[in-house]
This record gives sequence, structure tokens and C-alpha cells, in this order.
Amino acid sequence: MKIAIMGYGTVGGGIAKVLTANKNKITKVLGEECELGYILDLRDFPEDPFGDRVVRSLDEILADKEVRVICETMGGMNPAYEFTKRILKEGISVCTSNKEVVAAHGAELVRIAEDHHCSYLFEASVGGGIPLLRPFSTTLLHERIDLVTGVLNGTTNFILTCMQRGDTFDMALTRAQQKGYAEKDPTADIEGMDACRKIAILASLSCGASVDIKDVHTEGITKLTEQDFEYAKCNDYTVKLVAQARIAGGVVGAVVAPFLVPKEHPLASVNDVFNACIVHGNMLGDVMFYGRGAGRDATASAVVSDVIDALLHDHEHVFVNLDAVPSLKMDDEQMTHRFFVRVDESEKTKAVRTFGEDISFIEARGVFGEWAFITAPMSEAAFKEALQSLDEVRGYLRVLE
Amino acid sequence: MKIAIMGYGTVGGGIAKVLTANKNKITKVLGEECELGYILDLRDFPEDPFGDRVVRSLDEILADKEVRVICETMGGMNPAYEFTKRILKEGISVCTSNKEVVAAHGAELVRIAEDHHCSYLFEASVGGGIPLLRPFSTTLLHERIDLVTGVLNGTTNFILTCMQRGDTFDMALTRAQQKGYAEKDPTADIEGMDACRKIAILASLSCGASVDIKDVHTEGITKLTEQDFEYAKCNDYTVKLVAQARIAGGVVGAVVAPFLVPKEHPLASVNDVFNACIVHGNMLGDVMFYGRGAGRDATASAVVSDVIDALLHDHEHVFVNLDAVPSLKMDDEQMTHRFFVRVDESEKTKAVRTFGEDISFIEARGVFGEWAFITAPMSEAAFKEALQSLDEVRGYLRVLE
Repeated sequence: MKIAIMGYGTVGGGIAKVLTANKNKITKVLGEECELGYILDLRDFPEDPFGDRVVRSLDEILADKEVRVICETMGGMNPAYEFTKRILKEGISVCTSNKEVVAAHGAELVRIAEDHHCSYLFEASVGGGIPLLRPFSTTLLHERIDLVTGVLNGTTNFILTCMQRGDTFDMALTRAQQKGYAEKDPTADIEGMDACRKIAILASLSCGASVDIKDVHTEGITKLTEQDFEYAKCNDYTVKLVAQARIAGGVVGAVVAPFLVPKEHPLASVNDVFNACIVHGNMLGDVMFYGRGAGRDATASAVVSDVIDALLHDHEHVFVNLDAVPSLKMDDEQMTHRFFVRVDESEKTKAVRTFGEDISFIEARGVFGEWAFITAPMSEAAFKEALQSLDEVRGYLRVLE
Repeated sequence: MKIAIMGYGTVGGGIAKVLTANKNKITKVLGEECELGYILDLRDFPEDPFGDRVVRSLDEILADKEVRVICETMGGMNPAYEFTKRILKEGISVCTSNKEVVAAHGAELVRIAEDHHCSYLFEASVGGGIPLLRPFSTTLLHERIDLVTGVLNGTTNFILTCMQRGDTFDMALTRAQQKGYAEKDPTADIEGMDACRKIAILASLSCGASVDIKDVHTEGITKLTEQDFEYAKCNDYTVKLVAQARIAGGVVGAVVAPFLVPKEHPLASVNDVFNACIVHGNMLGDVMFYGRGAGRDATASAVVSDVIDALLHDHEHVFVNLDAVPSLKMDDEQMTHRFFVRVDESEKTKAVRTFGEDISFIEARGVFGEWAFITAPMSEAAFKEALQSLDEVRGYLRVLE
């Protein structure tokens, strides 16, 4: 059984490592050896044990009819997306960690795979090595999944953990970059795009329809201030970039934003680069998956698990609960949260008038000249409207229940 | 597609409920309806919507060749075990929540199922609805799993959570019984037998061999005192009944015992009837699964997920990573922990002499007349020997790293 890797970067290199380190186990599972036949990359890797497998063009790989699975670890939209389509149309399975392609074209690619009796699998695209996606297409398929809530981006979670411990945003970002957790251009992570793609994938798998990333209300973590963390600390909260999708049939309300998370909530103790995801099913209740959300070896291991699945079902299609039917966007009236709001102290009377008597006033050590409170549960629509009537809003966060 | 339920108690009734509540989803997954044809029970259920399906003998069910899966939710060893063997030999799949049978005869039953082109599945036997077992036979099969650590018994975890909050053992047990979390005879839970069976199942799936429950060092929670909790509280620990298996090839070292768990450890915040399990793979690192470990609907949902898997693979065998080859028991020299030890204050000098200078002395509010410390990491064998040289040991606990 021959496979190939497209894109020999961090994850691609990790796959070669996993194939080598766990060769015996993999051979036992498959009943024969899994040979890494080709690596598609524009660079040379003269020092690498697999350096002699590097080729420059996809055609070379496709010419070898023994190749049954190709791992797509190129990242980015193109040529990854175009290559994937070509490969699947040849009846060769693709296993990927590329959430950008999955979030934008997952359903189409699964459909092409089905039509050509092969598989498009992407366990590694969300939650690194955590075996999180497979259950949505197997064990949980008979459940009505109505809520998915996660800390899905390791980079921002590391930054927020540092800030919780007293770092400024800039200090925390630098630290993340030094550790290799954040890229040189960290935009996709800190502006919430990465988490947005991941929750879109999870929401799509939950309802079996396609959630458009444009339908996910997405805010990053760049507007958070030291004061926010001080309020959190003094009131038994922590601050997390939460990705949440509420699902009612084919209607999905999804949000990625920094939330105040109560200390006793299971997501509050998810620190550093760890990820976690809570799935709620109508019969199952809450189940949480937790682990290192990134990291070469863990992510590569997830790709390898897909490779094995595809090889064990060679010339068949491994079912994935993703359909091209677009999901409907939930109305802002149906999306409710409590909100934590900070206003200039001159706005106190107006705030009470606007948000009603059942808001709870909260304080933070060393923060003066402003007035902060947590609202009763209210809809996104009502909150947006209420904000209009205040002039000096210093900031707000949603509060996780 | 026709199925049957043997034993119409809590979980059996839950299965009927899940089949009814999620009928549409299940029909969609299977491509046809899943009909509950028979219920085997000695009691009558005149009020039950499925009351007319109750039969008294297994023969009646086996006579109907349309029945393809039978859920075994009888509990206890016999007749559950004998019935399961008979059913599998007819080529009919069995899905069960019965950890007693799985822990004792799982590998044999999987083998019989394989020989008769059907399946023996038991997702619900560990961790209730948490989709914890399937990954060991699918996604994680290529990983070298070397450590499994869990809080696997909801009843004792509820009791320990109450004790942590100030209840005595008896108060907590009564509360658990009132809530239906503990049985009238709670022995199997509080003496650790239930957790012992579960860690034996997990360890077996991790190494693909059969771990004998007799090889699991098992201690219950009945010897814990208020003082233990006071030490925990004053030193940022909590007390949990931890089940842990260390796996090195076919060699397994497994223990179930109350442990001091550091507050920042992910298992420390697993409270009430919740369960969690951390699985460590050589490439994957740590992954944690978390959820309600019991509860009718969640457990029933797990059985139904197995039923669906068996029906989708009718007349085939769904692979389960469980082999009848017995595992070897890890030597006590290789099992290391830190230990928390309480001795009479007259033993202080002797304790320091015995355990060496690198023990750390700890205190608890309101506990006098004794001396407590945490040892350096040492083997179970060395600890046992060291204990011999002390006369007045008031108690000890292992400490989770």
C-alpha cells in the first residue's frame, strides 16, 4: 500500500515521523506495509531519510497507480483545493489537516470522493490529535446535536492564558511566537478566523449541512484589555476565545468571540495551547473532548488515523456527515447570552434604564472611573439595540453559561 | 431491521426511549426502520408502550430470524454471559452495557462473534455515553498507548465530591442513594470493583491483550477519613478514586485507589457523577474524554450507537481490539508513585530515616498529634517495604502526577 504526502512542512514531516515510529503497529492494523512513496514539495530535503521520494509535480504521483491515499498538508486554499479535486476524481483518497479547504469546500469534496469510490477525511483539521470529528459521522450520528462549544484555537488560548497571568497582549504574542505557537503573521489566529473555520466544520458535521464561515459571527482577541482580565480575576471568571454553535435542525447560530467563562466551567481550566470541545446531544447530554490542539506529532497522528481508515476501505467511500445543502443562519433574536459591559461612570443611570434592574454590578481591583455589569440573558439583537442608546461603552464580552 | 432487548431495567428502558425519541435520525442512518421486536424480561410492563413485546424466553427471540441485534442490559454474570454466547453463535450481534461480562469474558465473546460473522460491542460498559472505547479499535489503533488514567466510577466520585465539601462518608453515601446514584448495596462501587472492571477493559483495549481483573490492585474509598480531605484542601489537592493502567507492550500495571490529585490536574475538576479518562499515546500525547459516566439516556445512547454499527455491518464482524492472550502483570518495582503518608507524631524520626530527606512535610488545619508527608517517587515494592518499618501508620494515599 503506497501513499504520498503533498506539502512537507510541519504536519507533512510529522506524518513521515509517525509512519516510521509506529511502523509495526500500522503494518499490523493494515495487514501489510504502508509505504511512503512520494513527497510533493518544491524544496529539496537532502538530509531527510525520505529525501529521495521528493517530486515536483502531482502528475508524477498520479502516474503511479499503486498510490491509494495522498495526504494534503500544504495549507492554504490553492493549489491545495485544485489538487484535492484532481486526486479524488482519480479515485484516490485524500486525508488532510487543511481546515481552510475543508471549511470552504468540504461538502463538495466529500461528494466528489463518494462519486469516485474513495474518501475525503479531515480529522486533523479540528483539534489536532483529539479524535473529535469521527464520532459525528459514526457514534453520534443518531443523536440530535444541538450545541457545540469549544476552545478551538491553541495560539489564542496560549496568549489569553499568559494575559490571565499578567502579560500584556504584545508580551503574550511575542512569547507565543518565540515558542513557535504563533506565526509571524498571526492574523488568522488572533482575529478568530482559524476558530471560525473550525466551528463551521463542527457545526456542519453536527447538522449534516454546510455552514458558511460568513455566517459565523467572528471577533478576535485584539480588543481585550488588562481591565477585562482584572474584572475576570476578581469575579471568578477567566477569559477564553470561545467558539459556539447552536443547532436547531438545519438552522445554525455560530459565534467566535472572547467570552467570560466561569471558573467552575469545564472550559475554564483549558489552558495554554490545549483545546477542548463540549458536544451536547439530546440523549447523550454533554461530552467533552480535550487535548493538545496543535503540535506536529499529534496532528500528524490524526492524519495517519485517517490514512488507515481510507486504506482499510480502499475503493469504498468512508461516510462523512457533511452535505452540500447550505445551513440557514439563526436569527439574532434566537441567540441569547448574558453580556459583560463596561461603561463610563457617567453612563450608569442610562445603563440601568436601558438594561433593566436585573443587571449585576461587578468591580475590579484598581479599575476606576467606569461602571461594569453583567446583563440578564438577552438576545444578540436586543443587546445590539441597547448598546445604541449608550454613548461611552468601553467594551463588552459575552458570558458563557 | 429487528432488534431485541434482554433485561428491561434502567438501561434497557433507556434504549427503548432513545429508539423512539430519535427514530427519524436512526432511520436515516440505517436507511430503514429499526424495529424493537422483543423484550426479554420476567416482569410484565402493562403500562409501557412496548409492553406487548415482552417475552419470557430467549428461544422465542431466536426463533425470529429477522432479529439481527440483541441488547444485553441484564447486568450480572449469568445468565447474561451464557445468553450472549448462545446469541453470538447464532450469528446475531450483541451490544451490551454489562462491564462484568466484558471484563471477564470480553475477548472470548469477541472471538465467538468473529467466528460467526457478527459483532460483540460494549461502548456503554465504560464511561456511560462518552464515546471512549471505539477510538481504541479505530482512530487510536496505530498509537502506542502507554498510560490510561481515569475517574471511571460516578457513584464514588459523587461521594468524594460531597466529602470534599464537608460531608462524612455516611452522609455522602446516603445522599448518593437518595439521588439514585448508589445502589442499596453499594459494595461494587465503593470497594472499587466497578472501576477495576472498567480499567481492565480499557487496559485490554490499549494493549490488545486480556487484562485479568485480579491483576488490578484495587482499593475502595471506605478507609478515607475527614483528615485526608483536610490535608487535601490545605495543600491544593482533591481526593479522587483514580483508575490507572500503565502499558508497556503486553505488560500492564493497573491500580484503582483513592489518590491525592493536584488541583491543576485535569481530573481534579471532574466532580459529582462525571467521569473522565486521559489516554496517552506515543505520538498523540494526552487526550481526555469527559462526560456523565452514568445516567439512563446517555448509557442507552451508547448502546444504540453500537446497535447501529452492528446493523450497518450485518453479517460482518466489527473489529474490537481485544485478544484472548493474557497480559502480563507489571512488576511492583516498575510501578512508581509519590505517596502521602500519615504517621503518629512519635514516628517522625523513624519516618525521615526510612523515606529519606526529600520527603515533603505537609499540614492540615485542625489535625494534631500526627505527622504527614509526601514521599519522593518510589516503587510500590519499595513503599510496601518501607511501611513495614513503621509501627503507627494512620493512612496513606497515592499522589497523582
